[in-house]
Amino acid sequence: MSLIEDLQWRHAVKAYDPTKKVSQENVDKIVEAARFAPTSSGLQPFKILIVENQALKEELAKGALNPDCMRECSHVLVFAAWDRYTEERIDKVYDFTTDERELPRGRFGSYTEKLKSIYLNEAAERNFAHTARQTYIALGLALAQAAELRVDSTPAEGFDNHVVDTVLQLEKHGLKSVSLMYVGVADSSRDWISTMKKVRIPKEDFVVEYK
Amino acid sequence: MSLIEDLQWRHAVKAYDPTKKVSQENVDKIVEAARFAPTSSGLQPFKILIVENQALKEELAKGALNPDCMRECSHVLVFAAWDRYTEERIDKVYDFTTDERELPRGRFGSYTEKLKSIYLNEAAERNFAHTARQTYIALGLALAQAAELRVDSTPAEGFDNHVVDTVLQLEKHGLKSVSLMYVGVADSSRDWISTMKKVRIPKEDFVVEYK
Repeated sequence: MSLIEDLQWRHAVKAYDPTKKVSQENVDKIVEAARFAPTSSGLQPFKILIVENQALKEELAKGALNPDCMRECSHVLVFAAWDRYTEERIDKVYDFTTDERELPRGRFGSYTEKLKSIYLNEAAERNFAHTARQTYIALGLALAQAAELRVDSTPAEGFDNHVVDTVLQLEKHGLKSVSLMYVGVADSSRDWISTMKKVRIPKEDFVVEYK
Repeated sequence: MSLIEDLQWRHAVKAYDPTKKVSQENVDKIVEAARFAPTSSGLQPFKILIVENQALKEELAKGALNPDCMRECSHVLVFAAWDRYTEERIDKVYDFTTDERELPRGRFGSYTEKLKSIYLNEAAERNFAHTARQTYIALGLALAQAAELRVDSTPAEGFDNHVVDTVLQLEKHGLKSVSLMYVGVADSSRDWISTMKKVRIPKEDFVVEYK
């Protein structure tokens, strides 16, 4: 199967069968694809919180636009981005990278200094606008990985961030929620969109070519 | 090959061989993966501008952080998002969708009314923050598609948006540039990062599990 066939297969599932679970192996692969997502300057400024605990899902459902999906899916992946860049966070990533590459720490020092001179002079809100964008690369790859495994999923932006941030105590982690991804087994009798044709803007309206 | 193997294979190429081109077939597949990217409410609020024209690449290089990549790669993909949501743009997507599904126009009317009540009451800047995020889902999938085809590529955020927007007259299209993706054939003698180990944050620092 190819990526394009996987993307054509998937759709945003509208209802899950609460009696069925996705295997840990498949959840691990979905997260692994997200972990390998490229990010700006390789900073990977986000985490994924995986919620399988039913009581916690019930709490999160209070802030969900589709609370039934939250309650009935197998696992909820919360994509949460760094609330701001800090010197310590940037150094931690680059120290780890140089250690892994058996290079002296500071090998990319002029680059990280440049990053710091940009990000640390910006407001936290502007930092977060940037870190949040990076999570979408990982979200797309996680959805593609679920599709490759023929695991049903739903990306979701529409939820009350305050509820999710509070329930998962994200501030303590220096994070803010950006998007959700439900994974599970679709309940085809209630997944009303599953019988509808998948529609995308035609290529001629999507692409402008300068030969 | 699996998606994870493809992601492990790729890296952000630092130098391209200017004598080598990527086939039109492969460029088409890369764009097709981006076209099938899921987006918020299915609005696909962006376009991809594909620049193969050398004179145009030279113009764009004036705003590039790595002008040699811009000049020497085979094709530059510019991900450009809607500068704002409008009633006409939302209706156009949903009219097309209902037509393709052989449903009456307005079938999703209560949903589109809700979208309009949110987006049309926001400042253009806030709309754009949302449309720009969607492009990253497509960028990630385009990078994955290039990797599946073993086509070298580089995602790039660091460039002068004003130069790119002006050269490509994006305002006329109602678009603003968000990111670039270079595709081409790496020049391994100058692609200094290609021999370095690929590093990602370890899973235990990337994931928080609530069982």
